[in-house]
Amino acid sequence: MKKTAMAKVINRFEIENILKETTPDTLIEYIEEAFTSYSSGLAVVPPVGTLSFNSPPGDMHIKYGYIQGDSYYVVKIASGFYENPLLGLSSSNGLNLVFNQKTGVLETILLDEGLLTDIRTAVAGAIVSKYLAPKKVEAIGIMGSGIQARWQLEYLKSVVDCKKVFVWGRSDEKLQAYKKDMTNKGFDIVTTRDSRLIGRKCNLIISSTPSTSPILFEEDLQKGVHITAVGADTIGKQELDLTILEKANLIVLDSKKQCQVHGEIHKAFQKNLLEKQRLVELGEIISSGGYSRRDEDITIADLTGIATQDIQISKFILERTSKRE
Amino acid sequence: MKKTAMAKVINRFEIENILKETTPDTLIEYIEEAFTSYSSGLAVVPPVGTLSFNSPPGDMHIKYGYIQGDSYYVVKIASGFYENPLLGLSSSNGLNLVFNQKTGVLETILLDEGLLTDIRTAVAGAIVSKYLAPKKVEAIGIMGSGIQARWQLEYLKSVVDCKKVFVWGRSDEKLQAYKKDMTNKGFDIVTTRDSRLIGRKCNLIISSTPSTSPILFEEDLQKGVHITAVGADTIGKQELDLTILEKANLIVLDSKKQCQVHGEIHKAFQKNLLEKQRLVELGEIISSGGYSRRDEDITIADLTGIATQDIQISKFILERTSKRE
Repeated sequence: MKKTAMAKVINRFEIENILKETTPDTLIEYIEEAFTSYSSGLAVVPPVGTLSFNSPPGDMHIKYGYIQGDSYYVVKIASGFYENPLLGLSSSNGLNLVFNQKTGVLETILLDEGLLTDIRTAVAGAIVSKYLAPKKVEAIGIMGSGIQARWQLEYLKSVVDCKKVFVWGRSDEKLQAYKKDMTNKGFDIVTTRDSRLIGRKCNLIISSTPSTSPILFEEDLQKGVHITAVGADTIGKQELDLTILEKANLIVLDSKKQCQVHGEIHKAFQKNLLEKQRLVELGEIISSGGYSRRDEDITIADLTGIATQDIQISKFILERTSKRE
Repeated sequence: MKKTAMAKVINRFEIENILKETTPDTLIEYIEEAFTSYSSGLAVVPPVGTLSFNSPPGDMHIKYGYIQGDSYYVVKIASGFYENPLLGLSSSNGLNLVFNQKTGVLETILLDEGLLTDIRTAVAGAIVSKYLAPKKVEAIGIMGSGIQARWQLEYLKSVVDCKKVFVWGRSDEKLQAYKKDMTNKGFDIVTTRDSRLIGRKCNLIISSTPSTSPILFEEDLQKGVHITAVGADTIGKQELDLTILEKANLIVLDSKKQCQVHGEIHKAFQKNLLEKQRLVELGEIISSGGYSRRDEDITIADLTGIATQDIQISKFILERTSKRE
C-alpha cells in the first residue's frame, strides 16, 4: 500500500491571517454558493448530529456533507460550553475536517477553534441583509453582546451603510465591552437592558443569543422591519415570540428541513402556525436575485447554519492556503 | 481569552508502535468496558451519521458519544472506498478526535487512518469468541480475505487455541496473499472459493466481507456452531441468510438499537422474524460472566461497531502516550 501523505494542519493563527486579507465580498460569494447549492438539491447534507452535556452545561454538533461534483466532503464539529469564560476559555470551539470525495483520504484539518463557524454565520447574516434589509435602515438592533453579536455587525458593514446601533444584553459589563469594541470599529453604539427598546428603535434587527425564551415581541416592532435570528441553532433555543412569525410577510430559512427541527421557527411549525406563511429558502432568494420588499413588510430570516457553509468556507481557506505556498 | 493549547496529533506510526507493545488481553479489557458501559446505559451514543458516494462508490460514517463521568467525548470518522486499492491506497481511512467533556476543547487527534477502527473491531470479535466459541473449536472459518479478516484471526489467537483455518474469498490472488500472511502468523490455512465449505468444516466462523447478499446458509452449518458477523456495518450489507437467524438459539448484538437499523439482523427485524428469538447485548453477556452453551446450540453475534469502542480505544492510546512522555 502506498503511504498516504499526512494531512495538512492549518491552525487558527494562519486562518485569522487569511481572513484579515480577505474582503467580505469574497466570503459573501463563497457563502452565497453554499445556500444556492443547498437549495438547488446539489448538496448531500444529512441531519445534524448533536451531543448534550449537563455538568457543566454544553452542547456539540456535527455538520457534514458534500456538494456533488466537488472535490471534498467536510465534517465540521463545533461546541458551546457557556461556562468556559469562567475558566478563561472561549465558549465556542471546533474544527473543520476536509476529506477527498473520491478516496476518503483526510486532506486538511482546519484547527479554527470555532472561528470559521463564527465567520460563516456572520457572513450568512450579511447575505440576508444584502437581500432583505429595508431600503433605508434607520438603526440596527443587535440582541446579544457576545462574539457572534460582534461578527454580525462587522460583516454587516459591507452591505448596510447605517452606523447607528442599539445593542441589548443582560450584563452591563458585557454591554460596555461590546460598546468599546464596536465603537472602535466605527459604529455609534447605544446599549440597553430593555429588550423592547430594540423593536421600537430599529428596523434591521439581528438576534444572536442562546436564549430559550422569547426576547422580541410583535407589539414592539415597527412596520417594515427585518429580523435575522441566528441564535436558535439548537433544539430548545428561541428568540422571537411566535406572534412575530405569524405576522411576518416572508420567512426566509437557510434550510426548510433543518429549521423544522432546530430553528427559531420549529415551535411555530409544531403548532401549525405557519401553514399560510410564505417560507422561502435563502438559496432561492439569492438565485432569483432577491425579494422586492414593500415598505410595510415584516420579514424574518431564521439561520440554523448548514453544512454547505462549512464546506464553502473550508474550501475558501484551502484555496487561499495553496495560493500562499 | 486564554489561548488554548494546540491539540496533540498522534499519527499512525506512533499508534502502530503502541499497539505492537500491547497484549491483546489489555485491549480486550478496554473494549469489554466499551460494551458493558454501553449496555448499562452509562453511555450517550446518538445514531451513527453516514454519507454515501456513488462515483467512485464509498461510504463514510461518524460514530460519537461519551461515557458519563468520563473525561472525554470522542468523534470517530471512518470511510471505506473499495476501489482505493486500484490507486494503491487503503480502502479504509479515518481518525479519532478526543475532546474534553467539560469544555469541548479538542485535546488529541488520533490520525490512525482507520487502524483503530480495524483493531477495536477485531478485539470485539475476540471478545465474542471468548464468551461464545464452542468448547472445542474444530476449525475456524473466515469469510473474506481483506484487512479485517486478517486482524480478526490475529486477535482470535489470544482466546482460541485452534490453528486450523478455512478461508473463503472471491479472488484467488487475494486468498493466496491471505494464506501467505497468516501462515507466517502460525496458522494452518486452507483457501476456498466455495463458501459452503466453510459451513461444513468450521464450528467457529467469522464473517467479514462487504457482501450485500447472503454468503452463509443454514443448511450447510454444523450443530453447535458460532458465527460472528462483523461485515454488515452499513445499511444494505448482509452476510448471513435469514434462516440462520431464525434457527439460532442465541443472537448477541453489540447494540440492540443500532443493529435494528444497520446490522446483519436488521432485515430479519423488518420482517418480524426475530420476535421469539433470544436477543442479548454483548455487554450483558460480559457483565453476567458469559453464556453456558449446550453442545448443539447455534449462536450468532452481530457486530455493527459502537462509539464506546472508539472511545475506549482512543482512551487507551491517550493513556499509553502520556506514560511514554
